Amino acid sequence: MSDYKKTYNQIAGQRLHRIEAISNGVFAISITLLVRDLKVPVSPEISTEVGLVNAFVSLVPQLLSYFLSFMTLGIFWTAHTTQFHYINKSDRHLNWISLFFLMFVTLLPFTTAFLSEYINFKFAIGLYWLNIVALGMMLFIQWRYVYRHNYLGIADDEKKIVNKAIKQRLIVSHTLYTIGALFCFINTYLSVLIMILIQLNFALAIFFKPSKREDKIISNSDSTLL
Amino acid sequence: MSDYKKTYNQIAGQRLHRIEAISNGVFAISITLLVRDLKVPVSPEISTEVGLVNAFVSLVPQLLSYFLSFMTLGIFWTAHTTQFHYINKSDRHLNWISLFFLMFVTLLPFTTAFLSEYINFKFAIGLYWLNIVALGMMLFIQWRYVYRHNYLGIADDEKKIVNKAIKQRLIVSHTLYTIGALFCFINTYLSVLIMILIQLNFALAIFFKPSKREDKIISNSDSTLL
Amino acid sequence: MSDYKKTYNQIAGQRLHRIEAISNGVFAISITLLVRDLKVPVSPEISTEVGLVNAFVSLVPQLLSYFLSFMTLGIFWTAHTTQFHYINKSDRHLNWISLFFLMFVTLLPFTTAFLSEYINFKFAIGLYWLNIVALGMMLFIQWRYVYRHNYLGIADDEKKIVNKAIKQRLIVSHTLYTIGALFCFINTYLSVLIMILIQLNFALAIFFKPSKREDKIISNSDSTLL
Amino acid sequence: MSDYKKTYNQIAGQRLHRIEAISNGVFAISITLLVRDLKVPVSPEISTEVGLVNAFVSLVPQLLSYFLSFMTLGIFWTAHTTQFHYINKSDRHLNWISLFFLMFVTLLPFTTAFLSEYINFKFAIGLYWLNIVALGMMLFIQWRYVYRHNYLGIADDEKKIVNKAIKQRLIVSHTLYTIGALFCFINTYLSVLIMILIQLNFALAIFFKPSKREDKIISNSDSTLL
Repeated sequence: MSDYKKTYNQIAGQRLHRIEAISNGVFAISITLLVRDLKVPVSPEISTEVGLVNAFVSLVPQLLSYFLSFMTLGIFWTAHTTQFHYINKSDRHLNWISLFFLMFVTLLPFTTAFLSEYINFKFAIGLYWLNIVALGMMLFIQWRYVYRHNYLGIADDEKKIVNKAIKQRLIVSHTLYTIGALFCFINTYLSVLIMILIQLNFALAIFFKPSKREDKIISNSDSTLL
Repeated sequence: MSDYKKTYNQIAGQRLHRIEAISNGVFAISITLLVRDLKVPVSPEISTEVGLVNAFVSLVPQLLSYFLSFMTLGIFWTAHTTQFHYINKSDRHLNWISLFFLMFVTLLPFTTAFLSEYINFKFAIGLYWLNIVALGMMLFIQWRYVYRHNYLGIADDEKKIVNKAIKQRLIVSHTLYTIGALFCFINTYLSVLIMILIQLNFALAIFFKPSKREDKIISNSDSTLL
Repeated sequence: MSDYKKTYNQIAGQRLHRIEAISNGVFAISITLLVRDLKVPVSPEISTEVGLVNAFVSLVPQLLSYFLSFMTLGIFWTAHTTQFHYINKSDRHLNWISLFFLMFVTLLPFTTAFLSEYINFKFAIGLYWLNIVALGMMLFIQWRYVYRHNYLGIADDEKKIVNKAIKQRLIVSHTLYTIGALFCFINTYLSVLIMILIQLNFALAIFFKPSKREDKIISNSDSTLL
Repeated sequence: MSDYKKTYNQIAGQRLHRIEAISNGVFAISITLLVRDLKVPVSPEISTEVGLVNAFVSLVPQLLSYFLSFMTLGIFWTAHTTQFHYINKSDRHLNWISLFFLMFVTLLPFTTAFLSEYINFKFAIGLYWLNIVALGMMLFIQWRYVYRHNYLGIADDEKKIVNKAIKQRLIVSHTLYTIGALFCFINTYLSVLIMILIQLNFALAIFFKPSKREDKIISNSDSTLL
């Protein structure tokens, strides 16, 4: 590496808030464009209320697919946001790790459409699973990078707790996704169903109230750090 | 719930400004994409100024539909912004309440298109009304959550006034929407017209000057709180 | 107006930075989507370099139309940004004035496409002119509102200079646009050409260096105010 | 230039953070929309896993084209962000330099699609190269402008190092692009391949760990400046 490059590498990618801003933008656009795949059924045969209800019911698979992609984007947006809550420094490496994470975010609508079209093919499930795993991998790489380089604005004991929580979450969720994907060798629909249930687990969790004890911990702790 | 999840739940979703930023992004994209449904009329028969004016006049229903969707998005954007003016803390629950609110924002162009296509069907009106009610519900849930968990950066007496204003606004407006929707059992066009008038009420209100007394209250009070 | 409404009107729309953020979002999307109307010419007859150059040359009107819409959006974005540089307070009225300004921003791609399709029609020129005038009007209304309600973070003498500059700019530019539009009664192409030249005037101005004296004024003054 | 214009020129374009925000928005949308050109292959003949894999393999050129455009946008986004890390003041000139930079960003999807369609034509390569060079030119003009007008928030010795790094980076990379483009007179595919390799150089560089010495420099220096 020539000398000018070393210097450029050192000065590039330090603008932390812009990484967050472009991430937010990419997620916002991806989430909004998902709906564009929902088409209003147009048919001259729809002439009664019952006919229209039936036409709407036939959209349910598409609505479900929309809902799942929305959930996936929401889950990864939350995970990305959570990491950046603690990150207080960035460099060119972190900058590019984030950009590659965003690349896999933008690819998700494509792999989802691929899965919708070929839901009874193992290859389509494998591709979709690969996309989710790639998102998790980039988050894992990112976290390990900022943890090792100490780009985190938290005290050491706090840091260990956060580190454990983030790593365990990524490992457990992606192990579950992988198990779900492997079910495609038995039945592809079953495999999709299991991946759907894993997502719903994340979705429904928020409707359960946190325990009193948990509430107390949250309200006692410093809101900017934990 | 296993132990690692409890911790993740506690550390996730605390980045308040990112919730606001992604909301702004979703609204900005939705508002801008609405116009994409307006198509320039292309016809070889348009050869005179009068012909072109007629072709434009035939676009009026589409322009009206655009205007109404714009108003709806504007109203809910303002309502969302108003709540976040007071919210000074967030957690994973608030994060997901906001994301589900955004889900219904992204669905609005779909239900609007559905209504445009089937304006003389009760089901289409019911679906559109359901979308608006869902938006209001999420705002209500969100406000109740931050109020109860005291995630508001305002003094107690102030808080009660704001709480009353926000709740009453939501209850009154959604009662009106519901009454409007119920008119579909008499006549679907009448039902749409009433919902349009409710929107216009919000729109035209801004052209009336606030009373002197009101002006005084605003200018006397702290701009960051009230 | 009932009592709860007065209160809601007082608490709504105070989040100044979100008005700026949604404006930025709408402009960013509008500017980026403009290019989507540029279509790569696909023809089996293109088999030589000269043929491809000719195919590209046939795109020049579309590229020009793209460039002009880009310039218009850039000019109004700069004007909007300039006003918000001085605005330090907002309320529900300012919130909705800004939203209606954005409505006309989102309509610009439509009126531009309308003009491209019917460039030899007075009506199309009138519609395009109306859109630009509406943008200018909203900026004028917005400025008058913040000036009269003293929502500006600048000293009184400074304020008068800024007020004069912003108002004169709007009046002069829209007088020129109107004169340009009126030329359509002589020749529609001439009318479009004049509007193009007015835009280019804004565009090319930046390539002329500011005079030494001007530079001095800028560097001497407080960067946050002037 | 009349007197009011001078004043408007002085007051316009000072809102530094909005230039960054609109840039982020344009990049986010461009990056997300790139994927829209990837179409899921739909064919009634695809009935086996092997058939689907083959259909996917036929998408590889499109995926490669997507990846390269993503890399180009990522590289220029990083470069733009790096400059704004040091810029602490703006005016109307800088505002318009940034807008024209964004114009070439929005044109990139068009020139990429043009190249994909006519990859064996020198003209298409020339056009793509011109777009990249225009992006580099605008960044060079921007940097020279802020350097000469001293709109940088860094000490003088620091400034010289940063200036050298940014200029050298732009000169070296664009010299390489030009050499790559010139290869089209030998073979167009070779020319594209070389441009791809230059991009990959930027991409793969991040996977090599920075040397210990470099790490030390980064961690020792003030994170807000270097």
